[in-house]
Amino acid sequence: MTAETAPKKPKDLEARIAKGFVDRDANDIAATEAMMAKIREVYELYGFAAVETPFIEYTDALGKFLPDQDRPNAGVFSFQDDDDQWLSLRYDLTAPLARFYAENHERLPKPYRSYRAGWVFRNEKPGPGRYRQFMQFDADTVGAASVAADAEICMMAADTLEALGIKRGDYVIKVNNRKVLDGVMEAAGVREDQKLTVLRAIDKADKFPPEEIKKLLMEGRKDESGDFTKGAGLSEEGAAFVLLTLSLSGRADGAPSTRFAGLIERLSGTVGVGGFVELDSIEALVRAAGYGPDRIRIDPSVVRGLEYYTGPVFEAELTFEVKGEDGRPIRFGSVGGGGRYDGLVSRFLPEPAPATGFSIGVSRLLAALKAVNSPIVAAAAKPGPVVVVAMDKDAAAMAGYQQLVSTLRKAGIAAEMYLGSAGMKPQMKYADRRGSCCVVIQGSNERNAGVVQIKDLVMGATITGIKDRAEYLAAQAEAQFTVPVADLVAGVRRVLARRSG
Amino acid sequence: MTAETAPKKPKDLEARIAKGFVDRDANDIAATEAMMAKIREVYELYGFAAVETPFIEYTDALGKFLPDQDRPNAGVFSFQDDDDQWLSLRYDLTAPLARFYAENHERLPKPYRSYRAGWVFRNEKPGPGRYRQFMQFDADTVGAASVAADAEICMMAADTLEALGIKRGDYVIKVNNRKVLDGVMEAAGVREDQKLTVLRAIDKADKFPPEEIKKLLMEGRKDESGDFTKGAGLSEEGAAFVLLTLSLSGRADGAPSTRFAGLIERLSGTVGVGGFVELDSIEALVRAAGYGPDRIRIDPSVVRGLEYYTGPVFEAELTFEVKGEDGRPIRFGSVGGGGRYDGLVSRFLPEPAPATGFSIGVSRLLAALKAVNSPIVAAAAKPGPVVVVAMDKDAAAMAGYQQLVSTLRKAGIAAEMYLGSAGMKPQMKYADRRGSCCVVIQGSNERNAGVVQIKDLVMGATITGIKDRAEYLAAQAEAQFTVPVADLVAGVRRVLARRSG
Repeated sequence: MTAETAPKKPKDLEARIAKGFVDRDANDIAATEAMMAKIREVYELYGFAAVETPFIEYTDALGKFLPDQDRPNAGVFSFQDDDDQWLSLRYDLTAPLARFYAENHERLPKPYRSYRAGWVFRNEKPGPGRYRQFMQFDADTVGAASVAADAEICMMAADTLEALGIKRGDYVIKVNNRKVLDGVMEAAGVREDQKLTVLRAIDKADKFPPEEIKKLLMEGRKDESGDFTKGAGLSEEGAAFVLLTLSLSGRADGAPSTRFAGLIERLSGTVGVGGFVELDSIEALVRAAGYGPDRIRIDPSVVRGLEYYTGPVFEAELTFEVKGEDGRPIRFGSVGGGGRYDGLVSRFLPEPAPATGFSIGVSRLLAALKAVNSPIVAAAAKPGPVVVVAMDKDAAAMAGYQQLVSTLRKAGIAAEMYLGSAGMKPQMKYADRRGSCCVVIQGSNERNAGVVQIKDLVMGATITGIKDRAEYLAAQAEAQFTVPVADLVAGVRRVLARRSG
Repeated sequence: MTAETAPKKPKDLEARIAKGFVDRDANDIAATEAMMAKIREVYELYGFAAVETPFIEYTDALGKFLPDQDRPNAGVFSFQDDDDQWLSLRYDLTAPLARFYAENHERLPKPYRSYRAGWVFRNEKPGPGRYRQFMQFDADTVGAASVAADAEICMMAADTLEALGIKRGDYVIKVNNRKVLDGVMEAAGVREDQKLTVLRAIDKADKFPPEEIKKLLMEGRKDESGDFTKGAGLSEEGAAFVLLTLSLSGRADGAPSTRFAGLIERLSGTVGVGGFVELDSIEALVRAAGYGPDRIRIDPSVVRGLEYYTGPVFEAELTFEVKGEDGRPIRFGSVGGGGRYDGLVSRFLPEPAPATGFSIGVSRLLAALKAVNSPIVAAAAKPGPVVVVAMDKDAAAMAGYQQLVSTLRKAGIAAEMYLGSAGMKPQMKYADRRGSCCVVIQGSNERNAGVVQIKDLVMGATITGIKDRAEYLAAQAEAQFTVPVADLVAGVRRVLARRSG
């Protein structure tokens, strides 16, 4: 805030968060941070190094070509700089990486492995659980044409999910190859202008039964509400062949090109055959490193709906179900995905710059970790600070409370003095709201005697239910007790120990 | 990146970062993260809880009142939403906190202690070391009218600097009160329209000698380049009185109102007297908690140039000097500051909402920590991964290298297989660029014998200087040695141990 603006105050100034955005509280921040620290740990074990690009890029460098005078902000938040160049807030972390690599490739190690986590922005209509600012966590290898780079990213994704507390069997990294899909479309006689609609239809294979997908591949589909989605316009035969691909799972042993031999025969003469050769290599590499089909699985039905993929594509899928609040099962499904995008970086360069990467949807993965009570996330929750009650408000008493607080902090115990003007009861309520385990009380009597009272808030709340008088008194003596000021830290630790037990 | 945009490619697409922005590398990210983790630790010990607001807010909620049709982006990056409301990227972390507190005050504990770190954006002309995106780390207490809240923040700032590795004596938290300055200006006969210029002049007291400040207080000052800065237009007598205030340091013992008794007498009948009462209270509280004048010091010359402060103001100053690259001394000066702003939150509310806060300039503080070789920052630097050289590129060999890499990672050692297509020599260069301590080599001979070679890159670079043949051979045997595959981890650890010694 600069000096000029402070004095102005418009009428009816209302404090309101912007539409489609959310604030985050301490628990959410701590859980996210703990999750990301674990992901970073795994990624660094794989030799990926952190890099960060700014939030704002030239619009054209992001692959968006403004201005569209009618809707300058369609999809992305954009604004014009003083020199009339268009700037945009990044809408993913891949486009900025492509810019970064192309700009710095001469000094970067090649292949260049990097990871980055950060907020991205979409100028779209917000909806339930659909925000205009959200976080992604990406890892990419640029400058490696070998599918060993793709295999490595799949293994890293599997290791990451396990490190986060997702059990083996509760997830699978599915691998396909865009070339296989291209081959299938070619063999099925799909025209160029039909391709995107076909890919979108295949991408819905985990949501709809085959007969509904078939409608989307042919004339179109009417949903329950009566809304009609136009289909790709394939022939009966073409649609059937595409559907056959989606249904293939093959035997679990042998190379993919053996398991899916029937499909490969049909793909003869298309790029699909080469796609299977790459899938064979990926499978051989991951199996050699000890990753079985329960963790990384070749699956010809995976699409990843982005047109820029050029080779292997991956999808990290959670396979377990949890019961929602209404008792109905919830599946988290995909929590991340990626693939090879050999064209994106080379847009900027005279030479080829093959690249492959993987992106985690941070908030969806976090929701899943909470659902399985991941120890990583559970350990992130922090207890509230010890509250030193401000019983008396004169300067000498306050200085004394300040000393008590300092003593606790020096012992590494989070502590604070109550800083408001309210009386005893609201102060206890305050401590409760802060999630404090105990409060420290010192009135004038205690001050003169050189002691403090320590009140265990959790125990204090439970003893009211005790019927037996002797038992109640014993519990009460533990729930609120007096110690010499010199034993303050020991007394508070006694209460803290009850919580960690 | 969405499907529609990928195929388009404008002519001469150039990869360039936007003007006034920077990318961050792994070392910078790790050092910043380590610094911030330590700050968080101290802040949480003080009972401050994390909170985060979004990057985008309604422009009016930030205290900016657009649109100015001529310069809609003056100072802040702004854009219009679909419903015609103006949105802006946050330009500090205080204005969003005010919005957050006002919007959520009913459910928040009161007083509300919180901290937040994050990027802020200024739409200003970039210059050397002056970026349009930079990071702040703020802590604020809202809802506490007591100066105990201000005292606490000063102690927390001192603790934070020491926890970060700044030695006692190398920093000082200077405390003043805006009321003292207001009283001085009143007593000096400063008119309302002169105040801002006077404050700006006082704020330069650490840069210029008194006679230059006096010019800024009176008619104005011509700098070395001949540029003229218009002065505040005070009389000789008024300027002299303001300067007297700046020169006051007083005796180190006794309450500020005693040490600065001469000044207080001159301020009789102004708000300045009340300002000193508050400074007395702050000093009593911090001294009671054991913070001497070497750490927290009352200093009537501190200004903090923002008009919205209403009471105590603080400045965290580094007092040591380092030698710059040109041998000339560098002083880092202020690395943070803050104060009480009782009007900012209450703009939104019918009731008062007193508040005080402290903001750290993250990149300046980090530069200072690097200059004093702070152990916090030094420990953040990470060594590069072990590189398993891809000697042979056939599938079986690659699968074998993949196994070696997996073995190292399972032992918690960051490792990677070379994924490019280059030969042996570029691979060694690559490992060097990655900062690897060693590489693992397995050609067909080694593979058949079930062994690997481990080459210590650091030692390998130093032994070339050894003249004595026997000594050279012994060193060479250590710099590159062969172990059975089963002893791979132990062999690599042998090299790692040489680095940590």
